[in-house]
Amino acid sequence: MSTYSARLAALREQLARDRLDGFVVPLTDEHMSEYVGGYAQRLAWLTGFQGSAGSAVVLPEAAAIFTDGRYTLQVREQVSADDWEYVAVPQTSISGWLGAHAAKGARIGYDPWLHTREWVEEATKALAERGASLVAVDTNPVDAVWPDRPAPSDARVVVQDDERAGASSASKRALIADWLSERKADAVVLTALDSIAWALNVRGRDVAHTPVALAYAIVDADGTADLFVAPEKIDDSVRQHLGNAIRLRDRSEFAPALKTYAGKRVAADPERAVAAIFDSLEAGGATVLALRDPAVLAKATKNPAEIAGHKAASARDGAALARFLRWAETALPAGGETELSAAAKLQEYREATGVLLDSSFDTISATGAHGASPHYKVTDESNVAIEPGQLYLVDSGGQYADGTTDVTRVLPVGTPTQEMRDRFTRVLRGHIALATAIFPPGTNGGQLDAFARRPLWEVGLDYGHGTGHGVGAYLAVHEGPQRIAQPSYPGGGPSEPLRAGMILSNEPGYYKAGEYGIRIENLILVEERRIEGAESPMLGFETLTFCPIERSLIVAEMLSPSERAWLDAYHAQVVAVLSPQMDDGERTWLAAKCAPIV
Amino acid sequence: MSTYSARLAALREQLARDRLDGFVVPLTDEHMSEYVGGYAQRLAWLTGFQGSAGSAVVLPEAAAIFTDGRYTLQVREQVSADDWEYVAVPQTSISGWLGAHAAKGARIGYDPWLHTREWVEEATKALAERGASLVAVDTNPVDAVWPDRPAPSDARVVVQDDERAGASSASKRALIADWLSERKADAVVLTALDSIAWALNVRGRDVAHTPVALAYAIVDADGTADLFVAPEKIDDSVRQHLGNAIRLRDRSEFAPALKTYAGKRVAADPERAVAAIFDSLEAGGATVLALRDPAVLAKATKNPAEIAGHKAASARDGAALARFLRWAETALPAGGETELSAAAKLQEYREATGVLLDSSFDTISATGAHGASPHYKVTDESNVAIEPGQLYLVDSGGQYADGTTDVTRVLPVGTPTQEMRDRFTRVLRGHIALATAIFPPGTNGGQLDAFARRPLWEVGLDYGHGTGHGVGAYLAVHEGPQRIAQPSYPGGGPSEPLRAGMILSNEPGYYKAGEYGIRIENLILVEERRIEGAESPMLGFETLTFCPIERSLIVAEMLSPSERAWLDAYHAQVVAVLSPQMDDGERTWLAAKCAPIV
Repeated sequence: MSTYSARLAALREQLARDRLDGFVVPLTDEHMSEYVGGYAQRLAWLTGFQGSAGSAVVLPEAAAIFTDGRYTLQVREQVSADDWEYVAVPQTSISGWLGAHAAKGARIGYDPWLHTREWVEEATKALAERGASLVAVDTNPVDAVWPDRPAPSDARVVVQDDERAGASSASKRALIADWLSERKADAVVLTALDSIAWALNVRGRDVAHTPVALAYAIVDADGTADLFVAPEKIDDSVRQHLGNAIRLRDRSEFAPALKTYAGKRVAADPERAVAAIFDSLEAGGATVLALRDPAVLAKATKNPAEIAGHKAASARDGAALARFLRWAETALPAGGETELSAAAKLQEYREATGVLLDSSFDTISATGAHGASPHYKVTDESNVAIEPGQLYLVDSGGQYADGTTDVTRVLPVGTPTQEMRDRFTRVLRGHIALATAIFPPGTNGGQLDAFARRPLWEVGLDYGHGTGHGVGAYLAVHEGPQRIAQPSYPGGGPSEPLRAGMILSNEPGYYKAGEYGIRIENLILVEERRIEGAESPMLGFETLTFCPIERSLIVAEMLSPSERAWLDAYHAQVVAVLSPQMDDGERTWLAAKCAPIV
Repeated sequence: MSTYSARLAALREQLARDRLDGFVVPLTDEHMSEYVGGYAQRLAWLTGFQGSAGSAVVLPEAAAIFTDGRYTLQVREQVSADDWEYVAVPQTSISGWLGAHAAKGARIGYDPWLHTREWVEEATKALAERGASLVAVDTNPVDAVWPDRPAPSDARVVVQDDERAGASSASKRALIADWLSERKADAVVLTALDSIAWALNVRGRDVAHTPVALAYAIVDADGTADLFVAPEKIDDSVRQHLGNAIRLRDRSEFAPALKTYAGKRVAADPERAVAAIFDSLEAGGATVLALRDPAVLAKATKNPAEIAGHKAASARDGAALARFLRWAETALPAGGETELSAAAKLQEYREATGVLLDSSFDTISATGAHGASPHYKVTDESNVAIEPGQLYLVDSGGQYADGTTDVTRVLPVGTPTQEMRDRFTRVLRGHIALATAIFPPGTNGGQLDAFARRPLWEVGLDYGHGTGHGVGAYLAVHEGPQRIAQPSYPGGGPSEPLRAGMILSNEPGYYKAGEYGIRIENLILVEERRIEGAESPMLGFETLTFCPIERSLIVAEMLSPSERAWLDAYHAQVVAVLSPQMDDGERTWLAAKCAPIV
């Protein structure tokens, strides 16, 4: 029996012991995080699935793994069809599948610390229609059969100093206190790890790629807060930084604490706080206000210090990437390099900055057909040699104390085809159309998304992902609520109006299945624009990422005069930002890569 | 005491007799129509308000009229501030205002035949929080104090023959029957007058501008239907057309009939059927399925016969408008013309076609500052002379048996300013950007709207209305569910994916308060596009409206080569479509107006 078959069998035995007829295993942790610590990677342990979104359901006679369109191929490679049925979401929901497959009278377990209340309500209803029931478990049965399950990280919390944060924790908590007063609320539960990090000006190392610490916080209407965190993670410097207004409590005290708000009005975020939190607050007699976490919008709109920090990080990161591109331009056509070796080389250049703290996500180093999978992750098994005639796509970013970066560039290995150049130029035109958009306050990213797609749409092409995601300030590389995407985008549409200070990615692409992938990604900052003669204030984007866009892939005649002007001005800025960091040889190379397009 | 003060006083006395502490007076009729018959114009009778959207609330000591931003000025001109408080929606909802103003214990009346169930639920909740209650009335108290209230129109129903309709009523009812079967439903209540007209291939003359008859219909799962309509409206030809599958019943039998569906599953549209219908069905023991009227989407996607009919109507209408423009070009600068005289002249040209059945809405004939009100309606009181230096805007349309038209053109009276020309050219560029958009199936109008605004946004300008509304086939000039607008557009966002066969308007504009208004409106048809090399089928627009766009208002240098090519090709088509209908003098004029732009 394979490792994964044995694990599934062990879980089924545990379910029988727990008198459960099934169990739901989501990918997330108790903070609804996108990236989760090793201790919470139950789905990967059980099934082998390595994607960033998915769920599994185990019944006595059936087991299913649920993934969206991004992972259709990957799930089939990583998860055995002998044990698992592949189910596509959103076409089939977990609730819907459970409703159809659970036996009459079945008791299906779920861990109330890993699901939203909305999910619990939906699944309860779907099972009820079948005469079955959804049962909250006290301890997760996966944990019971996972002998070598890692302990939660014990990494130390570190201070993000006020100068970098641009505002003290006290001032941020005062904002939250005002927000509570306006709503006549007594306290708010913060569960999103980046919200807690932002509100308290701390960072951690408990989760891959996102510098956050495992903790919960409850902020009171007087601006003080309880921080629930493992004591060994807090040293004196952090204790001093947090000060008297923050009451340090063990993480295990959080659940009991929720039951001590009888008669109080307590806010919790239905998208970010799990069902158990709502249940506990209500069980304790609190009135729960289902409201969006007040840190979310404040964190998304960066202040001048965060913007300045991002620009410094971006300039540094751009120089590292440019050095990699210079290397790749010669090394890739020469042969002998692979996706893994190229990714390692890029990592070297970033580490050479001396201040890299982490990558902001797993580098996508994809050549040829692998580039056509927008979320391709190179592994020892998938790794291939980079060959002449291919396009090589690299999407990567760094975590620096002053900022989080995310950038994608594409290089031809040798001479690109006319089709590749046509497609690349269309993607570039879409990128420019978004970068140069001017729009009134109140506009959301769903209204701007089509600007980036139009040059592809014109010839019957498109790309199957959003155009832009929010980016944090030395926090999550995928940050809400801002987004530029189609209204139907899974996981929350782009309905949040864009506001000055928000940072987003601008990353249209094109993917030819089995052949190549193209994506051009810079980060952009929403900024106010004063336009002479304007009847109202407007917003626009400032591009934050500086690195050459490969000129051999651009068909200059396809660009309009204004598109050409944008590209030349952009490249002139690349030279201005990167040259001071470079030696003579690099500068000469950069000047050639950034010369006006002809 | 003024007429309107006396009416308000009379209503208050009636409310006291009815033991009500207040009453809500909406603008709509019992079919949730946009244009309503004289008998249902209670809001206008009570307040003097002539706009197309609004509501009033009458309390013993206070009375308020609720209008949106379009009518901020108009409501103050037409409704006396002595009697009425002006309230802006959506900033303040009727429910919210009632919640704040109704006395504790107050009984606020409403006519359940004039509100959606959602509205009733919201208002009930808002009043309950105040300790007040919402009370359905059996007879409308406005009617009790309106001595000369018109009777509902007794105009005859007419047949829309199958050839024009492109599909028989039997085939349409078979579609509805299939829809019912799929939902395991027994019947569907049709209340929208244009849905009934479409499903039965009939038209009427009971409402201004929209060729529909006052009726209700209930279609059964076997494809037969009950039609509730005043018997005197039906002559033998209609009776024969309807055939045996349609049971003719008096309109007064509709409410009792709703109570005869005990144990049945009956569908009704929560946006189009009033609260009384849901109440009656439930009171009679039916299970009500709240679903969108199945005629809505079918009616919106025109069939080949309807498209051919529209093109014939549009060509005819375009020739009438072109003749008017030719006249106006000389007559307006010569002086002596007014907004009313110009509108009358245009009406003459349309009537000269010999087949005009109605205007499709009140002609907007607006000069100078009046043009800056997008929904300006010329009256004897507002009428002004058309003066040199102004822009004259005319937005109008005709109802023909083969199609419904809607078109806007702008003419300068004498020489336009550079600013006018700049703004007009930006509006034209937005119009072209939308007309030439290509997009994948699934795209909605909210994703395309910004194409039309971008040239204005670039210089800090915008327009405060949607870009496009659906248009019926010899039916309503404003037809859902298709729409091109911002997601925040009041009255239902543009969330419906565009489908081949839908007709919409393309009408960006620019309005300079106190000076002038610009709008360029053509109708456009969504059509499938086969593009060589495309990876999926795409959609695009075919422009349906042909009439010259004023060249003296266009700054040619502001157009890109492709915009210029579109304009020249459009004008060439105008010549091709209109010339065959014209005499030599008209043709010479047309050729000059449509020559390539230089």
